[in-house]
Amino acid sequence: MQSTLKPETIKQVAELIANREDDAIVAILSDFHFADIAEMLDELDIEESTYILKLLDSEVTSEVFIEIDDELRKKILKNFSPSEIAEELEEMDTDDATDIITELDDDIQQDVIRHIEDIEHAEDILELMGYGEDTAGGLMAKELVKVKETWTVARCVREMRRQAEDVTRVHSIYVTDDAGVLKGRLSLKDLLTASARTHISEVYIPKVDYVSVHAEAEEVARIMRKYDLEAIPVVDGNHVLVGRITIDDIIDFLEEEAEKDYQLAAGITEDVEADDGLFKQTRARLPWLLIGMLGGLGAATIISGFEVIMTQYPKLLIFVPLIQATAGNVGVQSSAIIVQGLANSSLKGHLMARIIRETAVALVNGISLALIVLIVSHFIFFTSYLESLSIGIALVAVIILAAIVGNLIPFFLDSRGIDPAVATGPFITTSNDVLGIFTYFLIAKTILGF
Amino acid sequence: MQSTLKPETIKQVAELIANREDDAIVAILSDFHFADIAEMLDELDIEESTYILKLLDSEVTSEVFIEIDDELRKKILKNFSPSEIAEELEEMDTDDATDIITELDDDIQQDVIRHIEDIEHAEDILELMGYGEDTAGGLMAKELVKVKETWTVARCVREMRRQAEDVTRVHSIYVTDDAGVLKGRLSLKDLLTASARTHISEVYIPKVDYVSVHAEAEEVARIMRKYDLEAIPVVDGNHVLVGRITIDDIIDFLEEEAEKDYQLAAGITEDVEADDGLFKQTRARLPWLLIGMLGGLGAATIISGFEVIMTQYPKLLIFVPLIQATAGNVGVQSSAIIVQGLANSSLKGHLMARIIRETAVALVNGISLALIVLIVSHFIFFTSYLESLSIGIALVAVIILAAIVGNLIPFFLDSRGIDPAVATGPFITTSNDVLGIFTYFLIAKTILGF
Repeated sequence: MQSTLKPETIKQVAELIANREDDAIVAILSDFHFADIAEMLDELDIEESTYILKLLDSEVTSEVFIEIDDELRKKILKNFSPSEIAEELEEMDTDDATDIITELDDDIQQDVIRHIEDIEHAEDILELMGYGEDTAGGLMAKELVKVKETWTVARCVREMRRQAEDVTRVHSIYVTDDAGVLKGRLSLKDLLTASARTHISEVYIPKVDYVSVHAEAEEVARIMRKYDLEAIPVVDGNHVLVGRITIDDIIDFLEEEAEKDYQLAAGITEDVEADDGLFKQTRARLPWLLIGMLGGLGAATIISGFEVIMTQYPKLLIFVPLIQATAGNVGVQSSAIIVQGLANSSLKGHLMARIIRETAVALVNGISLALIVLIVSHFIFFTSYLESLSIGIALVAVIILAAIVGNLIPFFLDSRGIDPAVATGPFITTSNDVLGIFTYFLIAKTILGF
Repeated sequence: MQSTLKPETIKQVAELIANREDDAIVAILSDFHFADIAEMLDELDIEESTYILKLLDSEVTSEVFIEIDDELRKKILKNFSPSEIAEELEEMDTDDATDIITELDDDIQQDVIRHIEDIEHAEDILELMGYGEDTAGGLMAKELVKVKETWTVARCVREMRRQAEDVTRVHSIYVTDDAGVLKGRLSLKDLLTASARTHISEVYIPKVDYVSVHAEAEEVARIMRKYDLEAIPVVDGNHVLVGRITIDDIIDFLEEEAEKDYQLAAGITEDVEADDGLFKQTRARLPWLLIGMLGGLGAATIISGFEVIMTQYPKLLIFVPLIQATAGNVGVQSSAIIVQGLANSSLKGHLMARIIRETAVALVNGISLALIVLIVSHFIFFTSYLESLSIGIALVAVIILAAIVGNLIPFFLDSRGIDPAVATGPFITTSNDVLGIFTYFLIAKTILGF
């Protein structure tokens, strides 16, 4: 397999669509994996994509629909009737079907569900639509292989044959009592090695990890990662097995979280991509620039407040960018380490011990930089001894201060329920900029005695 | 299950260790998942951890060893003899065993391998040790369920019973010919539904994704995510099946990559944690601060180069922090979007189109900010009309420039084989700072005509 998509192929498919050569299109696409077809649709226009998706069998296209970008999917689905959409959903696992149906406009949703022929499937989707997006219920699928503890191995295999039809991949075989309460799981190994007349109650493993249907997605991800699970059963308040979450959904969730953290650190508030429109890009980026601007105006106020410096020691002003850049960089470094520590709960020891260590690191970094700046400022920029000393001492002080602030802010945000990743964004750079410049001038004022 | 670790439990275990109450320790720990025991060791000291790991059965401790942090593992293993280490490795899958053995000192490695009793297991580990860490060979395990196309379903089930003993989780059943060449896979569904006398060659699925043993880890992750695979077979140059990679290893790999990107964006060069020592922290952080310092000195040179400004228009200097902060923020935003686009290959369209869109966004953001700054500078900081105009126009120019630079640098780095995530770090902030200040003064010089 593993065909890589060539630009020629896309061009060829586009031509075949223009000429309505259906058989040839089907023949070409049958060689491709559904993820590759999804990638191809990304390069074609909406009409061409619609044409392909209506032409191919819904067994294939349902998989393609799951893979394509949600913005593109929305546009394409506008060309599909409720019954056509229902036909696609019919082929999907309930979790994927639910994700797609909730993207549709409210008035179409009910119409689509009415057109789903498999009543049980429709009911399952309706149930899943009731859960919050970022909860276990919102992530789970209803498809699973479930056997009763009272069955024999032979009956179990018979029932599994039937159930396996609906389940794409068998991760685990779950064991319940007659009321559906989760009792444990059955390993494939045990099923293969036990004799046909053995009862399931004799061979199943009663230790099984599970999550509540209301658990937060983050908690589910933490548990599945910690215990290296590839699927986890979901139970309701009565401990009845209601669904299962597979690791691929968790991977997507983790990836989204990582992207969000990275974007917050870069000062972007919502998920934007390079080809998003002007309005969306501006909305995501302008707020952070405004924060930076406010900081800049704050710095301007501070500088003009120290009038003596502007008139008597103008040379100190040329080092403002140095102080500012260093304060910002140190602050971001410190908070990034804490944000990651909070994220993978690897922070140990006491706050005070950490602050002392952070201060020690800052002192070493600060003195190293200050020595260089001391020499460069005096011999290249001809500042006086006292001026150079002010710059050097200020640099050390600013670095220590920025490190401590950078260390504390993520905790503060975390305790207020705000994503601490915000701290590594323009927010902390800006406050450290302003604080740094103020410290710089204060120290200069003290040393130069004005 | 899902017991959460209470501080009291840890204290209790520590006391039991002090009193050498082995039976009580074993009784308490038997209730815990191995990942929880690993977490507990994190809180105990090395001697206590060693005591527990030597006390418990290697069936449990081998799992614990896999879970604990590698720094801690190294320290604990110093208290283990080669034959004790071999006993632990004996219980592990070959990929985990290989990871742990390569962490040991070179001279102990051979000694440990000699003590592994299962010769086949030892040979498998030796083979895996030969592959590069970040290749498919370095990620794969030798444990897999493999059947021959010439077998009947009955023989297949019999052989699987035997093989399943060694394989923790059966992801897929791979089908090979007599020479071991990968031919396809067998679904559990087909195995359950086919009659006992059917030949595997009649029921197996010939379409199977695979990777070469020399494929890069990043490529493996891309394929497994794209095609939603939970395991992928690995083949050598002759297409012979040599191992399989499971999704949990890929999750760890992706998480590490995301952390690395985030750290690069924050200006940290190696994987540091909040409780790492002074030397490691300084080594990871000082280089980036030096870059920032060089930028600061560059800015100082530029400012002192425009001497007229310092003497005649000192008010322009108070807006340097504003210009600098904005240039840095815009640059980081632009490059972060490109870095993410490169990472998930979602960048489409032509370079020129993207630059034009980016310029348009910059223009809107720039004009919005400039209008505010224009008014504030004139009415609050009492700059002249021409001075305010210089600041406003410079702000727009700086934002556009920073956006374009931020957009291009990731591509440049990527084409040179450097991780583009470096771009969102202090590197781009610094160059944009300097460029921004220069542009600011150049525009002021032109408008004010000195």
